[in-house]
Amino acid sequence: MAKLWQKTTNVNQLVETFTVGRDRELDREMAAFDVLGSLAHTTMLESIGLMSAEDLALAQQELKAIYADIQNNNFTIEDGVEDVHSQVEMLLTQRIGDAGKKIHSGRSRNDQVLVDLKLFFRHKLQEVVEEVDKLFRQLITLSEQHKDVLLPGYTHLQVAMPSSFGLWFGAYAESLADDLEMVLAAWKITNKNPLGSAAGYGSSFPLNRTMTTELLGFESLNHNVVYAQMGRGKTERIIAQALSSVAATLAKMAMDQCLYLSQNFAFVSYPENLTTGSSIMPHKKNPDVWEIMRGKCNRLQALPNDVAMMTTNLPSGYHRELQLLKELLFPAFADLLNCLHMATFMLQNIKVNTDILADPKYAYLFSVEEVNRAVLNGTPFRDAYKQVGLAIEQGDFNPDMNISHTHEGSIGNLQNAQITAAMDKVLGSFGFEKVENAIAALVR
Amino acid sequence: MAKLWQKTTNVNQLVETFTVGRDRELDREMAAFDVLGSLAHTTMLESIGLMSAEDLALAQQELKAIYADIQNNNFTIEDGVEDVHSQVEMLLTQRIGDAGKKIHSGRSRNDQVLVDLKLFFRHKLQEVVEEVDKLFRQLITLSEQHKDVLLPGYTHLQVAMPSSFGLWFGAYAESLADDLEMVLAAWKITNKNPLGSAAGYGSSFPLNRTMTTELLGFESLNHNVVYAQMGRGKTERIIAQALSSVAATLAKMAMDQCLYLSQNFAFVSYPENLTTGSSIMPHKKNPDVWEIMRGKCNRLQALPNDVAMMTTNLPSGYHRELQLLKELLFPAFADLLNCLHMATFMLQNIKVNTDILADPKYAYLFSVEEVNRAVLNGTPFRDAYKQVGLAIEQGDFNPDMNISHTHEGSIGNLQNAQITAAMDKVLGSFGFEKVENAIAALVR
Amino acid sequence: MAKLWQKTTNVNQLVETFTVGRDRELDREMAAFDVLGSLAHTTMLESIGLMSAEDLALAQQELKAIYADIQNNNFTIEDGVEDVHSQVEMLLTQRIGDAGKKIHSGRSRNDQVLVDLKLFFRHKLQEVVEEVDKLFRQLITLSEQHKDVLLPGYTHLQVAMPSSFGLWFGAYAESLADDLEMVLAAWKITNKNPLGSAAGYGSSFPLNRTMTTELLGFESLNHNVVYAQMGRGKTERIIAQALSSVAATLAKMAMDQCLYLSQNFAFVSYPENLTTGSSIMPHKKNPDVWEIMRGKCNRLQALPNDVAMMTTNLPSGYHRELQLLKELLFPAFADLLNCLHMATFMLQNIKVNTDILADPKYAYLFSVEEVNRAVLNGTPFRDAYKQVGLAIEQGDFNPDMNISHTHEGSIGNLQNAQITAAMDKVLGSFGFEKVENAIAALVR
Amino acid sequence: MAKLWQKTTNVNQLVETFTVGRDRELDREMAAFDVLGSLAHTTMLESIGLMSAEDLALAQQELKAIYADIQNNNFTIEDGVEDVHSQVEMLLTQRIGDAGKKIHSGRSRNDQVLVDLKLFFRHKLQEVVEEVDKLFRQLITLSEQHKDVLLPGYTHLQVAMPSSFGLWFGAYAESLADDLEMVLAAWKITNKNPLGSAAGYGSSFPLNRTMTTELLGFESLNHNVVYAQMGRGKTERIIAQALSSVAATLAKMAMDQCLYLSQNFAFVSYPENLTTGSSIMPHKKNPDVWEIMRGKCNRLQALPNDVAMMTTNLPSGYHRELQLLKELLFPAFADLLNCLHMATFMLQNIKVNTDILADPKYAYLFSVEEVNRAVLNGTPFRDAYKQVGLAIEQGDFNPDMNISHTHEGSIGNLQNAQITAAMDKVLGSFGFEKVENAIAALVR
Repeated sequence: MAKLWQKTTNVNQLVETFTVGRDRELDREMAAFDVLGSLAHTTMLESIGLMSAEDLALAQQELKAIYADIQNNNFTIEDGVEDVHSQVEMLLTQRIGDAGKKIHSGRSRNDQVLVDLKLFFRHKLQEVVEEVDKLFRQLITLSEQHKDVLLPGYTHLQVAMPSSFGLWFGAYAESLADDLEMVLAAWKITNKNPLGSAAGYGSSFPLNRTMTTELLGFESLNHNVVYAQMGRGKTERIIAQALSSVAATLAKMAMDQCLYLSQNFAFVSYPENLTTGSSIMPHKKNPDVWEIMRGKCNRLQALPNDVAMMTTNLPSGYHRELQLLKELLFPAFADLLNCLHMATFMLQNIKVNTDILADPKYAYLFSVEEVNRAVLNGTPFRDAYKQVGLAIEQGDFNPDMNISHTHEGSIGNLQNAQITAAMDKVLGSFGFEKVENAIAALVR
Repeated sequence: MAKLWQKTTNVNQLVETFTVGRDRELDREMAAFDVLGSLAHTTMLESIGLMSAEDLALAQQELKAIYADIQNNNFTIEDGVEDVHSQVEMLLTQRIGDAGKKIHSGRSRNDQVLVDLKLFFRHKLQEVVEEVDKLFRQLITLSEQHKDVLLPGYTHLQVAMPSSFGLWFGAYAESLADDLEMVLAAWKITNKNPLGSAAGYGSSFPLNRTMTTELLGFESLNHNVVYAQMGRGKTERIIAQALSSVAATLAKMAMDQCLYLSQNFAFVSYPENLTTGSSIMPHKKNPDVWEIMRGKCNRLQALPNDVAMMTTNLPSGYHRELQLLKELLFPAFADLLNCLHMATFMLQNIKVNTDILADPKYAYLFSVEEVNRAVLNGTPFRDAYKQVGLAIEQGDFNPDMNISHTHEGSIGNLQNAQITAAMDKVLGSFGFEKVENAIAALVR
Repeated sequence: MAKLWQKTTNVNQLVETFTVGRDRELDREMAAFDVLGSLAHTTMLESIGLMSAEDLALAQQELKAIYADIQNNNFTIEDGVEDVHSQVEMLLTQRIGDAGKKIHSGRSRNDQVLVDLKLFFRHKLQEVVEEVDKLFRQLITLSEQHKDVLLPGYTHLQVAMPSSFGLWFGAYAESLADDLEMVLAAWKITNKNPLGSAAGYGSSFPLNRTMTTELLGFESLNHNVVYAQMGRGKTERIIAQALSSVAATLAKMAMDQCLYLSQNFAFVSYPENLTTGSSIMPHKKNPDVWEIMRGKCNRLQALPNDVAMMTTNLPSGYHRELQLLKELLFPAFADLLNCLHMATFMLQNIKVNTDILADPKYAYLFSVEEVNRAVLNGTPFRDAYKQVGLAIEQGDFNPDMNISHTHEGSIGNLQNAQITAAMDKVLGSFGFEKVENAIAALVR
Repeated sequence: MAKLWQKTTNVNQLVETFTVGRDRELDREMAAFDVLGSLAHTTMLESIGLMSAEDLALAQQELKAIYADIQNNNFTIEDGVEDVHSQVEMLLTQRIGDAGKKIHSGRSRNDQVLVDLKLFFRHKLQEVVEEVDKLFRQLITLSEQHKDVLLPGYTHLQVAMPSSFGLWFGAYAESLADDLEMVLAAWKITNKNPLGSAAGYGSSFPLNRTMTTELLGFESLNHNVVYAQMGRGKTERIIAQALSSVAATLAKMAMDQCLYLSQNFAFVSYPENLTTGSSIMPHKKNPDVWEIMRGKCNRLQALPNDVAMMTTNLPSGYHRELQLLKELLFPAFADLLNCLHMATFMLQNIKVNTDILADPKYAYLFSVEEVNRAVLNGTPFRDAYKQVGLAIEQGDFNPDMNISHTHEGSIGNLQNAQITAAMDKVLGSFGFEKVENAIAALVR
C-alpha cells in the first residue's frame, strides 16, 4: 500500500494489515471533513505566502470538486491507498500536479486527523441534537394528549401513588433537555480548532491558526499545541459520556415500555406490525424494538468506559492505538441516531390504556391523598397518617379518587411549556448557524 | 432503631443492619444541607397556610440553632436513630413540640433526600472548581516560568520534535479549563430543585415550588415530579462523569511525572522529602504521590461506570439501592479534592532539568525544523522532506538548534493569556455568588 | 511515623498522609496472615543457615503469641506505626531483640505484602465458597419443596410457557454451581506462593521457596519472580471477576424477587418484619433487602473493571497505587459474604403463591403444550402450530392444563440430584483441607 | 423477509431492519454449528419416535451436504431470509420436503441459538488456547535463549534491581499459563448442553437430552431448563472475562515493548520492516504493532463490562437484546486471535540489546546484592543495609557485578521446565480430543 511517509524498506504485509485495520472503511465517513480541512488550510497557506494565489485557486477548485463527489457518493478510497487523507492528496496531485503536493506544508498527519475528527464529531453531534429534539417534541405532544389518563406510580416496584401518562411522557422529555447540557459540553470541547498543532508540538511555519479557526467555524482554538494533541482520546471520551447520557434516558424509557407492555402491567400497546409475536401465542406482542433499543443504549452506556480503558495511563503525545477509537465512536453515533429515530417512530404509534386504575389492586394508591386532605383540614401530618393507616387496617378505607394536584410539575400542572422553554434555551446555546454558515462559505 | 414510618411489626435486626448500611455515617456529611432544605420548606409551608407564623418562627429558630451546631461540629446522629433526617426532626420535635411534626407536611423522605443530595453535590462541585482553579494558576505560572526550557516531544513514545516545559505545563492548564465545561454541565443539571416532588408523583398540597427554588438559590426547578425522582442516579452518574474528566487530566499528568522522574528520562525532580526512597538505593526517588494520584484518579475514571452499572435497567420510580450511590460519590469528592490539592502542592516544589537536550539521543528532534526551513525558502514540502531524510541517512545532518515557533499555541507563543481568559469565562458561568447569597439569607 | 526503610530526610506530612491512606485500617485484616508468612519464612531461613536454631525458636514462639493475640482481637496497629508489617516486626524486636531483626532477611516488603494478600484472599475465597454452598442447599431445598407449584414463564417479559417454582429455584442453584468454576479458577491462581520474589527480581540468598510453599499450604509457586510481582493487580482482577460472577447470579435473583413481590406479579411474599412498609400503605411490602442486594451485587459486577482501570497500561514492576486495590477488594468480600448470607436468610422465609395460574391472563401459557400433543399424535410440527393458532384466533382454545414434562431438567424431572452432584464435584476441587492442615501445623 | 413464526400482519420494515441488525452477517459464522446441532437433534428425534428412520436418513444426508458446503464456503444466507436457522431449514425443506419440517419438533429458536452459540464459542476458545500455546512456547524459547542477558529491574519506574531477559520473557509465559485457568473455567461453563430447554421452560416431548449431550461432545448438560436459558449473557460475560485475562497479559507486554523500544530505554529492537517510521526521522522506529495490540487488548479488557452493562437487571427469561451480544463477542475472538498471532510473530523477530547495564545510570542496581553478601557473612540484615547505604552516600560503593541468584524462579534458575509443565497440565484439562471425536462422528 502506498504510503507518503514511507522509507525504502517495505513494511511487512502482516504488520500493515494489522495496524491499518478498519481505517479505510471508517475513513470514508470522514472524507468530506478532510476536504473541508484542506480548503481552510490552503487558504491560510496562501495568506502567509506558503502557496501562490494560482496554486491556491487550482487547489480550491479541485478540492471543491472532490467535496461534491463525496456528497454525491462518487468517492472511494482506492485499493492500495492507505487512508482518506492519502486518497484526497493523491487525487489532487494527479489533477493539479505540484500545487497538490504543497497542501501538506505546515501540517502533519496528526493535526489533519485531529481536525477531521473534530469536524466529523461536530457534525454528528448536531444530528444527535436534532433527533433528540424530535423525540422531545413527540414526548411533549403525548404528555399533553394523555395528561388526564392516570397510571399507578411505583416506588420499590410497589404500587404507591397516583401518576399519569402526562407525567410519564413529560418526565422523559425533561430528561432529554438535561441530557443536552452534557451534549452541549461535549460540543463546546469539540468545537475548538486543533489544526496547526502538527505532530503535537507545533511548527516553525508562521501559521495563522486564527484564520483556519474562523474559516472552519470553530468557536475558538485548542490553543496549546500539546493540549491539541491531548484532545485525541479525551474528546472521544467526553463525547461518549454525552451520548451515554442520552442513551441512559432511552434505556430507562425502553425498560418502562417492556414492563408496561407485559400482560402483568398492560399499560400501553402497539399496532401488531410494530411488535413481533407468534401465531400460537396470539396474546404475545413482543416489544423487540424496545428490547433492542435497551440493549443498544446500555452498550452506549458502557462506551465511555471503553474509551477510558483504551487511553488510561498513556503518557502525553500521540500513540497509534488512538486511531482505534474510531471503531468505537463511529458506530456509536449511528446506533444512537437509529435509536432516537425508532423511539420517536414507536411513540407516534403508542396506544395508552385509559382504564388502568379500575383494577382493585390499585385501590390503595389514594391513601396519601386522604392523609393530605386531613392535614389541609388542620390535622398534624403524623396524626393524619396514623388515622388513615388505622382506617385501612380496619377495612374502612373509602378514598375519593378525584385527584387535584396543582403545584408546579404535578399531575394537574405539568409545566410542559416551561420544560419546552428550557429545551429551547439549551438548543439555542449550540450556535449551529455559525457553523453552517462557515462551512457553506468554505465550499461555495 | 426508631423509624417514623414504622408499622407495629418490628423490622428484623439482620434486615435493618443490611439495608441501613453506612447511611448514618455518610448522612453526617449531609446534615447541614438537610437543615437548609427544612428552612426553605417551612418558609414555604407557612406561605401556603400549612404552618402558622408562630410555628414557623419557632421552627426556623431551632433549625438555625441546629445548623450552627452542625457547622461547629456539635452534631451527631444518635444511636438508635436511623438517619440524619430523623435526627433533625427528632431534635426539632423535642424542642418545639407539635410544630416540629408539621415540617414533614407536603414532603416525603424521597424528595427530602433528593434536595439534600443536590445541595451537598452543589457545594462539593464548587469546592472542586475552586481547587481546579488553584491548580490551573500553578500550571500557568510554571508554564511562564519555564517557557524557554526545551524538552523532547514524543510520538509513539519515540523521540520526535522539540517541545518545552512551557508547552507541557500549559497543556495541562488548558485541559483543566476544558474539563470545567463538563463540571459546568454537571453543575447545571444538579442546580435544579427537586423539592416538592414528594415520593416522585407530587402532592395534593398547594405547594409553592418556585418559592423553595428561590430560597435555596437553585437556578430552576426539576419541573416534572417524575423526572425529579428520575434525577436520582442520573445526577450521580453525570457528576461522576464530570469528576472523571478532571481525574483523567490528573492521571495523565501523573503518568508523565512518573515517567519523567525515572532515571531513563530525568526531566524533573522533587525535594527528597516529597518522594520516598531507600537508604540503600540513594538514586531512588520514588514518585509515590504521583503513583497514588494516578491510582486514585484512574479509580475515579471508573466511577461513572460503577454508577451506571447500579442504575441500568431500573424502571422509573424510586428503588432502595439508589441510596448506595452515596458510598460511591461521597468518597469520590474527597479523593478528587485531595488529589487536586496534592498536585498543586507537588508542582509548587517541582524542579525542571534545564539541560535535557544536551544528550545526543535527542539530536534528531530538529529534522522537521530543517525541512520547514527549506520549504520557507521555496522547496515543495515533499521534496524538502526527502532532501533532509537523505542528508540524515548520509550522516550529513547538522541542524540549527535555535527554535523559532511563533504561531498561536507554539513554543514561542504559548497563549497563556488566552487560555486564562477561557478559564475565567467558564468560571464565570457557574454563578456561585447567587447560590452563596441565597444560603446566607436562609441561615441569617 | 516510623518507617524502617527511612532515609534521614523526613517525608513531608502531607505526602505521608496522602500516600499511606487507609493502609493501617485495612492492614488490620491482614495481620494474622502476615504472621503466618513470617512463621514460614523464618523456618526456611533457619533451614538455609540464615537464622540460628535458637533465634528461630524465639521468633516462632513470639510469632505464635502474636497470632493468638490477633485471633483474640488483642492486636492493634499503634499510632505512629506505618503498617501491619512494621507493627509485627516491632513487637518481635521488642520482645526478642536482634533475632527479630533477622526475619526480614531474604524478603522485601513487596513479596511480604504479596504473600499476605494471597493468604488473605485464599481465606476469603474459602468463606465465599462456604456461603455459596449454604445458599445452594437452600435453593435446592426450596426447589424440591415447591416443585409442583406452577409459575408463568416469560420471554420478552411476555407470558409465554408454564414454568414452576421447582425450575425457578433450581435454576439459581445450578447457576451458583457454575459460578464456582470461576471461583475455582481464581482460587487456583491465588493459591501459588510469591514469597521469595523479593522486590520482584529475586534474591541472591539461597532461599528455599519450595519449603515455604509447602509450609503455607500453597499448591505450587509463582515460579518466575517477575511474574510473582506481576500477580499484584492481576490476582485482584481475577478474584474480582470470580466474585462478580456470583454477584451476577444474586443480582438477577434479586431482580426477579423485586418483580415477583410487586402487586403486578404477586408470586412470592415475605413475613412483614422482613420487608419495610408504611402504616398508610398497608399493601406495600418493600423488598428493601433484595433491592440493596441488587445494588451491592451490581456494584460488584463493576468491580473487575475498577481493578482493570487502575492497572491498565502499567509497565511491569511494582507501582505504589497497587496498594489501593485493597480498598476495592476488602469491602467487596465483606459485601458479597453479607449478600450471600442475607439471600439464604430471606429464602428461608419466602412464601410462594400456589394459586398463580388461576388468573385468566395466564391462559395462553398452554398453547405450545397443545401443539406438541398434536405432534406426538403424528401431525408435522409446523402444521400443528398453525392448527392451534387458528383455534386460538377463533376463540376455540380449551387447553388441558395438566403438564407432563419428563425430559432432563424439565418441570417433572428437575435433576436436582445431578445438579447437587455437579456442585459437590466443584467443591471437592478446591482442596481446602490441605490448606487448613498446613496452617494448623504452622501455628501449632 | 420470510419468517417462519410470522402472523398474518407483516412486521413494519423499519422495525425489522432495526431488530434484525447485523444478525445475518454474524450468523454466517455460526452456520456450521447450526447444522451440527440439527444433526444431533434429528438423531435424537428419531430415537424417541418423533421422526421416522427414513426421514432421518434423508435429513442427515442433506444436513451433511450443507455442512460440507459451509466448510467449502459455498453457503450464503439469501436475501429475504432472516437468519442462519431459517436458511438451513429452508434448504432442507426444499430438498427433502416434509421431513425437513420435522426437525423443528421439540426445539425452539431459543435453544437452537443457545446450542449454536455454545458450539461456536467452544470452537473459538479452542483456537484461543492453541494460539496462546504458540505464544507461550515462543516466550519460553526466548527466555532460555537470552537467559544471561541482564536488564535493569524497575520498581516505581525507578531503577531498582538486576533483572534479565530470561526473567522478563519467562514472566509473560507463566502469566499465560495462569490465564488459561480462566479460559478453562469459561470452557467448562460453555461446554454444557442447553439443547432441549426450548424457550427456556422445557418441552412436553420426551426428549433425550443426554443423547444430544453425547452426540455433540458436551461434557454435561445445563440441567435445569430455566438455567439453560439463563446461560445466555452469562456465558458471554464469563468468556469475555477469560479473554480479558489473556488480553491483559498481552497489553502489559505491549506496554513494556513500547517503553523498551523508546530511545530512553533502547532495550529491544525490531527489523525495520516491522516498525513504521519516517524518512526524515531515521531514528524513529514506531512500535505500531505493539501500540495497536495494546489498544485492542485494552478494549478487550473493557469487554466483560460491556456484556455486564447490557445484561444487568434483566429478569430471568429471554430478552431480545441478548442477540446483540454476538456483535461484541464475535469480533472479540477475531481480535484476540489476531493479537496472539502478531505477538508470536513479532517476538520471533525481536532483537535484545546485550549491552544495557554498561550505562552508568544503572550502577546502583547492585546495592542490594552487596547487602545480601554482608548478611550471608553474618551481619544482621538491617545493619548490613545501613552499612551499604552509608558507603553509597560517601561515594565509596564498588559493587561486584556478578550475579548469582540460585533460588527457584530467579535469574540463575528460571524454572522454565516447571512453568512449561504447569502449562501442559492446564492444556491437558480441556479435553479437546473428546470434542473433536464427537464432531467428527456427527458429520462422518
